[in-house]
Amino acid sequence: MSIAWTSCYSDRATGAKSSIIRELLRVTQRPEIISFAGGLPASEVFPTERVREACRSALEDKAGMALQYGETEGYRPLREMIARHIARYGIKASEENILITTGSQQALDLIGKLLINRGDRVLVEAPTYLGALQAFSTYGAQYVSVPTDEDGLRVDLLEGPLRSGPKFMYVLPNFQNPGGTTLSEPRRRALVQLAERYCVPIIEDDPYGQLRYEGEHLTPLVVLDRGRRPRGEDFNLGNVIYLSSFSKTLSPGLRLGWVVAPPDVIAKLAQLKQAADLHTSTFTQVIAYEVARENYLDEHVKKIRAVYRERRDVMLEALAREMPPEVAWTHPKGGLFLWVTLPEGIDANELFQEALKQQVAFVPGESFFAPDCSRQEANRHLRLNFSNANPERIREGIRRLSLAVKAHLRELQPA
Amino acid sequence: MSIAWTSCYSDRATGAKSSIIRELLRVTQRPEIISFAGGLPASEVFPTERVREACRSALEDKAGMALQYGETEGYRPLREMIARHIARYGIKASEENILITTGSQQALDLIGKLLINRGDRVLVEAPTYLGALQAFSTYGAQYVSVPTDEDGLRVDLLEGPLRSGPKFMYVLPNFQNPGGTTLSEPRRRALVQLAERYCVPIIEDDPYGQLRYEGEHLTPLVVLDRGRRPRGEDFNLGNVIYLSSFSKTLSPGLRLGWVVAPPDVIAKLAQLKQAADLHTSTFTQVIAYEVARENYLDEHVKKIRAVYRERRDVMLEALAREMPPEVAWTHPKGGLFLWVTLPEGIDANELFQEALKQQVAFVPGESFFAPDCSRQEANRHLRLNFSNANPERIREGIRRLSLAVKAHLRELQPA
Repeated sequence: MSIAWTSCYSDRATGAKSSIIRELLRVTQRPEIISFAGGLPASEVFPTERVREACRSALEDKAGMALQYGETEGYRPLREMIARHIARYGIKASEENILITTGSQQALDLIGKLLINRGDRVLVEAPTYLGALQAFSTYGAQYVSVPTDEDGLRVDLLEGPLRSGPKFMYVLPNFQNPGGTTLSEPRRRALVQLAERYCVPIIEDDPYGQLRYEGEHLTPLVVLDRGRRPRGEDFNLGNVIYLSSFSKTLSPGLRLGWVVAPPDVIAKLAQLKQAADLHTSTFTQVIAYEVARENYLDEHVKKIRAVYRERRDVMLEALAREMPPEVAWTHPKGGLFLWVTLPEGIDANELFQEALKQQVAFVPGESFFAPDCSRQEANRHLRLNFSNANPERIREGIRRLSLAVKAHLRELQPA
Repeated sequence: MSIAWTSCYSDRATGAKSSIIRELLRVTQRPEIISFAGGLPASEVFPTERVREACRSALEDKAGMALQYGETEGYRPLREMIARHIARYGIKASEENILITTGSQQALDLIGKLLINRGDRVLVEAPTYLGALQAFSTYGAQYVSVPTDEDGLRVDLLEGPLRSGPKFMYVLPNFQNPGGTTLSEPRRRALVQLAERYCVPIIEDDPYGQLRYEGEHLTPLVVLDRGRRPRGEDFNLGNVIYLSSFSKTLSPGLRLGWVVAPPDVIAKLAQLKQAADLHTSTFTQVIAYEVARENYLDEHVKKIRAVYRERRDVMLEALAREMPPEVAWTHPKGGLFLWVTLPEGIDANELFQEALKQQVAFVPGESFFAPDCSRQEANRHLRLNFSNANPERIREGIRRLSLAVKAHLRELQPA
């Protein structure tokens, strides 16, 4: 007799759901469909030649190390390089403050493991990154959602939710996924101040920070937080855990992210990581180090910015040209996504079916809202990715999408 | 003011402990120390030239895919290749039955997530792999330990523990880490029968199965289990989840393991994996595929076997020559480890300090026993790795170790 596996599953596993995006991607991988659904970087901008050289060099004189087990915290030269790299953004850290993770997603998972007891509340933006909701929900998180606008999290609405005692706040200050919005400098200052007042830590997720296409770089929360402490106090303290990644600047296929935090937090995360996967691939870490060294990363990011800026502009122009006046969208200053708000009465899930007929795809807004949000409000939105398709396909895709929207609006019109 | 992070930690994180091995490795990395402590493959046998070719080929015509996001289940050609590969060991599976993990350690973590509710009992061997204890403990596992002997798990002692209702059994049938023991064929048959009778699933962890240096390959539990089902019943059913890895046959630095299970279990594990790290590095998966294809893996494993067989024999000879008669050890037919039993009264932790003075290192037995085992019994053991050091260093290391044992025995002698 065979065991009924479903009866063996933990409460955690029974509650787990597949991300709708994962399911969508299957549908939208058909070549005739122009997909704005994924969050994929453009493979044309991968630094392939440089990766090739990096492989050659890694396997030339350090193959024995690059193919061997490594330290849980990560490859030391890579951590040192990251420390130098983020120093240019004002984040002072040593390798002691840095843990390499198997993509930023693992950082979210480890943070869930570190901080969440079943039933704990997590304060999130509405909308927010769905991968974070997935990671935190595995550990039994409940949510308190706070609205966002073009200037990011509505910090003016934060005190009530903070009084409800959330375990931490999860915030994407730069070119948020999915909103495309950026947290303004005054709100950043207010946010770190509130974190301190209510003793609620901030998880600052910043995978897109370097991909800015206009305006000035804004100070990371982790820097503002440290600025509030007496001079000379080192990075052993602080209320912010900062996350970033090589996925959007070098290659997502390498699966390399990192956490910046006080050393005690890093040590605890490393213990949890050891049980989770021992360590991140030594080989991809050595490759990333060899690729990024000698400031190549900064050079490369300039190139990516130029390509994505054009694509963003093409998508914004196409939306302005094609969409009926009832449709609104954000103007992201960077990143990979923009966020569309549909006229009242249109449900993004229904529009998705119409769009598929027109052979264009997006992600309906619903999955980016925690369970405490209104479904009706959530369904008025959709996320568009502008980094993956080339300008020509973006123009054609937005044309198709607006046909779908118009067709759907006509259907809803009273006859 | 800065937040006191320790007060924010979850119960899970507060309970997490660093593996003693991780701490040991720091001490034992000093070049003057001959270390049998790690579980490292020999870097001399890494297929470096072939990895170089694989990188070239992966970046030649499929760089856009190899550096991009990929499917959570893993790179399809790699899963198909694994299916063909394990078919030769009698394990019939399609890619639907296979999930690629970030090393076998991640498989253990995902299985803990999948099956363990806080307080659930897990049946383990005494001794057992400490990484599994770490992974399961994260999810609040309790343990029921069952003794082992030279023929592996004492299946004759299993019924009592099975009646206590464990959630699953975790077993390493081949060249167990740390014991070096192999589960005999009759015990394998009895084990799958008991699993069925008591409706308790088996997790069969087999990272070393291919590294056999003498005797015949024994049938995997997953195959015996399926053999008990009516003919024609497909792999949608079964009581065994089978784990293996490329870490000991190709390279641990690639971090590639895999799970073989019924499709419904694979689908659920994939959901959990998605939240944990989205997917395993596409790049290392493509590399592993390119390296292992065209039966290169089997050819390469033959070479590794020859090297490790010699090292095992050298260590066994050195132990026989150098050790006082009160010391006993296992005769592993494969794998990377052998297991030493010290005379009563010797504590392996104390011996470790003596050994460091002689500049040789091992892992004291304690960490390989679940908390329900006797500490005194546990401390009479130590684990030696024979794959990493070359024959000359093995001979010298065992000489040093026996000096330490003899010195320690003298100290304990009444004056």
